[in-house]
Amino acid sequence: LARRNIRATLAYDGTDFWGWQIQASGRTVQGVLEAALERMHRHPVRVRAAGRTDAGVHAAGQVISFFTDLDSIPAEKYRDALNSYLPPDIRVISSREAGPDFHARRSARVRVYGYYLYVAEVGLPQYRRYCWRIRQRPSLEVFNRMAARLVGEHDFSTFAAAGSAESCHVRQVYTACFYLQGPFIVFRIAANSFLWKMVRSIVGTIVELEQGEEGEERLGRILQARDRSLAGNTAPARGLFLERVLYDGETL
Amino acid sequence: LARRNIRATLAYDGTDFWGWQIQASGRTVQGVLEAALERMHRHPVRVRAAGRTDAGVHAAGQVISFFTDLDSIPAEKYRDALNSYLPPDIRVISSREAGPDFHARRSARVRVYGYYLYVAEVGLPQYRRYCWRIRQRPSLEVFNRMAARLVGEHDFSTFAAAGSAESCHVRQVYTACFYLQGPFIVFRIAANSFLWKMVRSIVGTIVELEQGEEGEERLGRILQARDRSLAGNTAPARGLFLERVLYDGETL
Repeated sequence: LARRNIRATLAYDGTDFWGWQIQASGRTVQGVLEAALERMHRHPVRVRAAGRTDAGVHAAGQVISFFTDLDSIPAEKYRDALNSYLPPDIRVISSREAGPDFHARRSARVRVYGYYLYVAEVGLPQYRRYCWRIRQRPSLEVFNRMAARLVGEHDFSTFAAAGSAESCHVRQVYTACFYLQGPFIVFRIAANSFLWKMVRSIVGTIVELEQGEEGEERLGRILQARDRSLAGNTAPARGLFLERVLYDGETL
Repeated sequence: LARRNIRATLAYDGTDFWGWQIQASGRTVQGVLEAALERMHRHPVRVRAAGRTDAGVHAAGQVISFFTDLDSIPAEKYRDALNSYLPPDIRVISSREAGPDFHARRSARVRVYGYYLYVAEVGLPQYRRYCWRIRQRPSLEVFNRMAARLVGEHDFSTFAAAGSAESCHVRQVYTACFYLQGPFIVFRIAANSFLWKMVRSIVGTIVELEQGEEGEERLGRILQARDRSLAGNTAPARGLFLERVLYDGETL
């Protein structure tokens, strides 16, 4: 039987998931997806994902891949087929065939995350699961001067969560900036890959530093110090979205 | 004891409510609010609202009023005081003292509703509770030519739900138009008041007519016929928001 490699783009509302990665107990995105694939295939199917998002983190453009031995379904139809087995908080946006060597995680060249901030004394309830509400309107100029310090190749140990198993903390950040989008201030950051909780740690630190003096210089010193104890609090998971993943030949 | 009349602006996520109006059973916005006020006041407090929204309908700018005999709380502080008793899907956005004759429903001059349409083959999960997803991109020009027919004083019997207890179906529509807002097409309509399910019936009809020929003329004829059987399907509650209410001296 010919095995095809299927690449699919996925969106999910992370609120009711214990993150991406399958666990002994607890509802996870990988667990729900693999259960749906097993029902379709009548045998277990392993799924790879570009980003192993944490509990409460959302996705608008997660990329997954899996091998299928069903020869009756065109690759583009896996979208609708899978959606019919999935709950409404996970949706497959598109699917297509990839080459046999494509691996959603290992082949990924760039991940793009968006972090949604919402400035209000009292927040609209429909936004409560999808952003971090802050009370004081920040200076976007100061935010963006700090964000610019992150661009380039750096050792991001300062922004790596304790317990991270990664041996190398050097990452290449391609773009990092804040801008207004509807009622939100969105921080969009693109890098080859990210350390555990890195985006949330960066956002928490920038929001804290913006309140004080010389935020830009202090951020630069904190980054160079490679000392986790200098980072601010980790921003809440609910504001974070995995927005896009780029592979060979794709551009920002 | 001096009784003060408090006016407050309210937002709620209608998903988990059986509408505004208190019922023998089922969680309602009025029920949850009056329970919170009773805990604050240690006796029952009756709340009035500008719009008695249906099950699943949201609010971003509902206006309520109630009388209070607590003399220890400044009127502006009812916002935070009430929020501390309310669940996260209801938020008081602001509060202030109104004159003794102010009545949130009877004093209201204009209600503004927004209906959120979302065009996509597969929708992002974080939008699933707050819009109606349609598959085909409509012509905004055709939508807006139909909407323009609604402006003015008309008998809206065509768009009144069966079982409506209103004796007079004449309403004054001040503005009605569709425009793009972020990922949504929003229909915003302002009128002195609305018949039961009127906005959802109008949206369902316009979306249906847009697919065919001569939508504008057909909408005009359907409106003039004052015949409910000519209306399209009622659009789902989840796309509808009560956005603003205007009182004497306030303008759109």
